[in-house]
Amino acid sequence: MDRNIYIDNVPLDKALDLFMERLDRCDYFEPETEVVDVLNSQGRVTGAPVFAQKSSPHYAASAMDGIAVKASLTYGASETNPVSLLKGRDFIEVDTGDYIPREFNAVIMIEDVNFIDDYAQIIKPAVPWQHIRSVGEDLVAQEMIVPSYYKIGPHEIASFLTAAVETVEVLKKPIVAIIPTGTELVDRGHENMAPGEIVDSNSRMLEGLCRDWGALPVRYEIVADDRAALRETIEKAKGDADMVIICSGSSAGREDYTASAIREFGEVLVHGLATRPGKPAILGIIDDKPVIGVPGYPVSAHLIFDLFVRPVLLKKQRLDLPEPEKLECKIPRKIASPMGVDEYIYVNVAKIKNSYIAYPLNRGAGISTSLVKADGVTCIQKDNEGLQAGDTCIVSLKRSRSIIDQTLVAIGSHDMSIDFLCDILNRNYGIRLISANAGSMGGIMSLVRKETHFSGIHLLDYDTGDYNLSYLKKYLADEKWILVNLVKREQGLILKKGNPLNITGIKDLTRKDIRFINRQKGAGTRLLLDYLLTKNHITPAEINGYNREEYTHLSVAAAVKNDACDVGLGIYASAKVMELDFIPVSEERYDLCILVDVMSERNINILFSCINSQEFKNKLTASGGYNLEMCGEIIFKNQL
Amino acid sequence: MDRNIYIDNVPLDKALDLFMERLDRCDYFEPETEVVDVLNSQGRVTGAPVFAQKSSPHYAASAMDGIAVKASLTYGASETNPVSLLKGRDFIEVDTGDYIPREFNAVIMIEDVNFIDDYAQIIKPAVPWQHIRSVGEDLVAQEMIVPSYYKIGPHEIASFLTAAVETVEVLKKPIVAIIPTGTELVDRGHENMAPGEIVDSNSRMLEGLCRDWGALPVRYEIVADDRAALRETIEKAKGDADMVIICSGSSAGREDYTASAIREFGEVLVHGLATRPGKPAILGIIDDKPVIGVPGYPVSAHLIFDLFVRPVLLKKQRLDLPEPEKLECKIPRKIASPMGVDEYIYVNVAKIKNSYIAYPLNRGAGISTSLVKADGVTCIQKDNEGLQAGDTCIVSLKRSRSIIDQTLVAIGSHDMSIDFLCDILNRNYGIRLISANAGSMGGIMSLVRKETHFSGIHLLDYDTGDYNLSYLKKYLADEKWILVNLVKREQGLILKKGNPLNITGIKDLTRKDIRFINRQKGAGTRLLLDYLLTKNHITPAEINGYNREEYTHLSVAAAVKNDACDVGLGIYASAKVMELDFIPVSEERYDLCILVDVMSERNINILFSCINSQEFKNKLTASGGYNLEMCGEIIFKNQL
Repeated sequence: MDRNIYIDNVPLDKALDLFMERLDRCDYFEPETEVVDVLNSQGRVTGAPVFAQKSSPHYAASAMDGIAVKASLTYGASETNPVSLLKGRDFIEVDTGDYIPREFNAVIMIEDVNFIDDYAQIIKPAVPWQHIRSVGEDLVAQEMIVPSYYKIGPHEIASFLTAAVETVEVLKKPIVAIIPTGTELVDRGHENMAPGEIVDSNSRMLEGLCRDWGALPVRYEIVADDRAALRETIEKAKGDADMVIICSGSSAGREDYTASAIREFGEVLVHGLATRPGKPAILGIIDDKPVIGVPGYPVSAHLIFDLFVRPVLLKKQRLDLPEPEKLECKIPRKIASPMGVDEYIYVNVAKIKNSYIAYPLNRGAGISTSLVKADGVTCIQKDNEGLQAGDTCIVSLKRSRSIIDQTLVAIGSHDMSIDFLCDILNRNYGIRLISANAGSMGGIMSLVRKETHFSGIHLLDYDTGDYNLSYLKKYLADEKWILVNLVKREQGLILKKGNPLNITGIKDLTRKDIRFINRQKGAGTRLLLDYLLTKNHITPAEINGYNREEYTHLSVAAAVKNDACDVGLGIYASAKVMELDFIPVSEERYDLCILVDVMSERNINILFSCINSQEFKNKLTASGGYNLEMCGEIIFKNQL
Repeated sequence: MDRNIYIDNVPLDKALDLFMERLDRCDYFEPETEVVDVLNSQGRVTGAPVFAQKSSPHYAASAMDGIAVKASLTYGASETNPVSLLKGRDFIEVDTGDYIPREFNAVIMIEDVNFIDDYAQIIKPAVPWQHIRSVGEDLVAQEMIVPSYYKIGPHEIASFLTAAVETVEVLKKPIVAIIPTGTELVDRGHENMAPGEIVDSNSRMLEGLCRDWGALPVRYEIVADDRAALRETIEKAKGDADMVIICSGSSAGREDYTASAIREFGEVLVHGLATRPGKPAILGIIDDKPVIGVPGYPVSAHLIFDLFVRPVLLKKQRLDLPEPEKLECKIPRKIASPMGVDEYIYVNVAKIKNSYIAYPLNRGAGISTSLVKADGVTCIQKDNEGLQAGDTCIVSLKRSRSIIDQTLVAIGSHDMSIDFLCDILNRNYGIRLISANAGSMGGIMSLVRKETHFSGIHLLDYDTGDYNLSYLKKYLADEKWILVNLVKREQGLILKKGNPLNITGIKDLTRKDIRFINRQKGAGTRLLLDYLLTKNHITPAEINGYNREEYTHLSVAAAVKNDACDVGLGIYASAKVMELDFIPVSEERYDLCILVDVMSERNINILFSCINSQEFKNKLTASGGYNLEMCGEIIFKNQL
């Protein structure tokens, strides 16, 4: 087996310097230009100055609707002594833009003329050249309209056309060959994918990023893990493109293929970066062109693209690397980060009262949704061991501030109703809802620390059989809050379709042939399980999988569906969407606790409108397993 | 004749409210959606939430390269008591992403395994489920990936593909019909355009703006001034498009055509706005669709598009109207503005020392280059009579701050060498040079007021016959400056090709059959003319056209070329590019005066590098009429 353990651990700044300097040295950034029709030049960058080919106007033109006159004939005109001019001899009628023949030298506005038969009567003398646009007033032939390395937009196109410019010399768009490699890759996902098959989504993301950065991506067919095939593809790509990207899969074995293939044709400058994610990147040069091995995990692939591909592509096109907006944010929770590594943390950002909070997203490099969710990224430098709760960090934003400022946060227990609220809030009010799954207890803690606007909770009080209120009164006694019911819902055992193991209830969870999957500590569902186990005199140790944790109802259902386990506890709706069997064990109340002090009155009203809307109720009804009899009912207001 | 004098004068805010409210009322903004392949969804906006179709990973997957084991077999392993596992029975080798069969429940990293023949030796127990990605770790089937009205980018496409989403429901792109009207319009400019012919550049600019705003523009063929033809085109367009734009020419007669055509099919809400430019705009509704009559002058057309079309198109696509960056700037010169009209002033912006200055561009609505040059726009509200010199104003930027911060300003006399410097500065140093023609005396005044980094000047001292120095010592005695020669150049009479009027020198300017064109007051060339006239005992009144002014050498040459006059005084280079005859009358020194205190040392060095570059000299030599013997020579340093 061909294994490779990173020998290099190159700091990011050094790697970027090395790479750019090497490309500079081989004149990679020397401009190449092509000539395009002006009509096809939008968004392109000029490779040479553009000069006007013709003046505009190219003739003396009327600037008004009116009459063209000889100014000298109007001298002395006044209200008491109007001057009459004869049509054809002393004046002609002109519209704006009309040619002013050589014999006339002024225009009088239509509003100032009194027409009587063939005569025009005027009561004010004209100043020579008034209301006449001189030749070249806008553009003079041979004048430079824009210099080299100037990005062409709609206004420039209009000026070029006005100046009779037909074609412009522009910088060529860099062609980027993107080669997905890996025997496990499939082009598109589908219902019946085999275990081990992975959708090649990275090359598509990279294609899209190239387009965003003005380049022309060319995605190659997936190359299987075969040295000869990879070599052959690189050979073709290096001839066709200005840059070659090899999506080299995420395994060390795969990268080694890539590194050795690059070495065969050229040189590897860097293999292994002191960054997280992105460590397994390869920076190489073949025939004076950059060749980059991009790791297989999507977050790593994105980071390497952002750090290395983007500056090269923009520089080649003489486009500025835009400075992202920076925002100082508070970190709610300690983040440890290894010394010696620049760690990039993707975060959600929201404003709670007056301060911005950066919520770190799942740090797994395999989580493609972190890229979707991320509002920005913060970097923990290599000489730093991490951040403490309450520390500030600088976030480079990738989403506009206006979206961030219009964001509500819901940390707590997850229910699909939160997704429906998210859609309705965005659709009808332009308010973004970001939600994080921290379980019901996690939600209460977030409320205590004022890191969330509201929380979904479903905490059973063992003693009273009631939900939520006793917990809130205990932990949030000193805050203003409103507890409102969202749904009542069925909790139960989620089972494979047809119940092949013939599970009948909680008691069967102790069977040795049954693999259970649990929810994380602090989840209301886990508390419910513990309550049910106690009632049934079962200890956790008796259950195979009690310590195996999932974070949402849907992931529990997915684990059952995909045979990662046989049974889990969760809500009916998630069993239903996954087409699984369900044995109800309890109906529970899922409420929202809204923190009044951190939410504007307007947003509280909007939230209630959504909760009480028919649209919301229709979606819940269609989803199934929800009892809406209390939906929108205010259970308690803690008003102090 | 069919004339129309504006009867309406609707304030902008009222017009916009009226228009949007009317469109809202007819449900114009109700979303229409279509289904597209995920691969074609970049930049589109979701019309419905997108749910994962399959979990990712859809199987238990190795998160590392290593071996898959049964955790229980590893318990008790230590350095002193290693555990040996048999390949195939106790473990299998796995790469990152590989499927973990049901019988294994942990992965040990390759770095922690010692392979001996068919055995793997390990020295640390494995925790159950370590290094295994559970089903749905990234995405769980049926999970909402993004809500409705969410703009899709490369990351979203990657997540959609990962979740086996094949198609997405997106909002339709609004189709905008753009109808250019006017018998005088031609499609493209060319060498032999007749007087009165105008290139239809507006419809192309509007096309480009529509594309920038996510819409699909459909440009119609030019419609001549014919009521029936216009009616017919509108009838077709209102069926095909979601919005109809009539580029209605700039004359009041033309608009009236447009207004009455709109009235025939629907209603005119507004005809005539209390704005400058943009006054002649028409806002109408046909079949519950917006129909906008856009004035013919390019700056008016742009403003109306920006104020009315953009918000409608973005709202229809549920895209945010981005808030432009605002910058507080100082106004160098008084700007008068009529009461009752919102006046939009397009400006250049540059930083001189520590303050931003907004330089108003030519306010003529016909100046297409103002749109190219503009860094932003400021509005003088209708209840305001204008701004005084030194007042601050808020500029909405349309160019990035980084470009503005990298800007040098050259106000003064114009020479084509300034254009060459502009190109070289941008090309080699990414520094933008904006120049404004204010004549040599204007340049000195700008230096005195510290509104420019440097100025081109060529002022003859009548007494000494020397150039520039005596003026600078008089006006800029208390400032640090450097006077450097750029070129020496020939001034002379610019004449029609072949000299048909047989002009021989300055004395002929008094001939009655000769039409002269002068430069503006304060221009060095005008001072030279006055000097030459005095020497020849000629008074200005004897010259036909002494009071007719142009602002650059090129415009003087263009006026001669296009028979707007017969002769002007100017430099050889401009006669040459226009292929005109030239009678030299004097060689003069064109110098740059650099204000040391307002320019960074780095930028001064860069400027000198450009002046002394071979590239600069080559361009001047190719242009002709320049004497470079003193180019780059420092004539004086006023160091106090």
